[in-house]
Amino acid sequence: MNSLSEADKKDLIVRLRRIEGQVRGLQRMIDEEKYCVDILTQINACRGALKKVALKILNRHVNGCVKNAISQEEGEEAIITELMDVIDKFSD
Amino acid sequence: MNSLSEADKKDLIVRLRRIEGQVRGLQRMIDEEKYCVDILTQINACRGALKKVALKILNRHVNGCVKNAISQEEGEEAIITELMDVIDKFSD
Amino acid sequence: MNSLSEADKKDLIVRLRRIEGQVRGLQRMIDEEKYCVDILTQINACRGALKKVALKILNRHVNGCVKNAISQEEGEEAIITELMDVIDKFSD
Amino acid sequence: MNSLSEADKKDLIVRLRRIEGQVRGLQRMIDEEKYCVDILTQINACRGALKKVALKILNRHVNGCVKNAISQEEGEEAIITELMDVIDKFSD
Repeated sequence: MNSLSEADKKDLIVRLRRIEGQVRGLQRMIDEEKYCVDILTQINACRGALKKVALKILNRHVNGCVKNAISQEEGEEAIITELMDVIDKFSD
Repeated sequence: MNSLSEADKKDLIVRLRRIEGQVRGLQRMIDEEKYCVDILTQINACRGALKKVALKILNRHVNGCVKNAISQEEGEEAIITELMDVIDKFSD
Repeated sequence: MNSLSEADKKDLIVRLRRIEGQVRGLQRMIDEEKYCVDILTQINACRGALKKVALKILNRHVNGCVKNAISQEEGEEAIITELMDVIDKFSD
Repeated sequence: MNSLSEADKKDLIVRLRRIEGQVRGLQRMIDEEKYCVDILTQINACRGALKKVALKILNRHVNGCVKNAISQEEGEEAIITELMDVIDKFSD
């Protein structure tokens, strides 16, 4: 159980499938000995796309689970600590 | 043509195959409605793994193409500008 | 009005005063022509210290303003959008 | 001894003086209990400005010390290892 709607799930899976394709493309680039800087540019794009996926899920999580925990006063402290932890690691 | 040895190529492709598996795992997590924070943790791991791949390629590039361009005084200016550009975007 | 206690304020100001000192130290390092890599290492330390300050404030903000807005059902949507925006820029 | 020209030094010190002012401004914002999100936005700006300073120094270092070490074949291995280390930490 999480805070993602059916539409969110569909959108996120489409994005991740595209990222999966990019990662497969990276393997091909290495195998075909493409230029390092082109590979690095592609890795940057991949990491950026993953960050966008993460931000979208984070948004839904705050608007869903976190909001519910607070308004129902149920486990709000734990859920906020957990949220801060993931944001901390997230920003690297 | 790039600066990666056969051993580098093998190592990088193994890493990227693992990352591809992680990205597929992420799609499954979303499909199975896993907890948002667990998905976010997995995305962080993925981005970290991609960063390691990038750092390894960058290392080889500097020790290969960049070094050669400088010692042969051939297109060193362009290659350094290009290097700085990729590092700039890299650090986001 | 914000979510920082007197103890938070004191702690944050002490940290920022130290960071201010580091930034002044950086000017001295440049003036005295210290080695570039040592200057870069010091900048990394500075940015890391600023990130810690930001994470602490973010923590207080979520536990204060954001929590209040949600439990009082007052402007929660706007405050969450704003939170997501700052996290988005934060992670660069 | 480093790779910064007199013009670089002047430019970098001006930038760092401005950043020092921003850090002092942050202390004032906390003291005057400004809104958390405004403080966070200001911290992001500060970190961004420090990153620009770092990128400029990195650029000079690569075009100076690193290039010289390579073209004179003197300590190039150590200087490249050191460079990769600082870039690694840099990108956080």
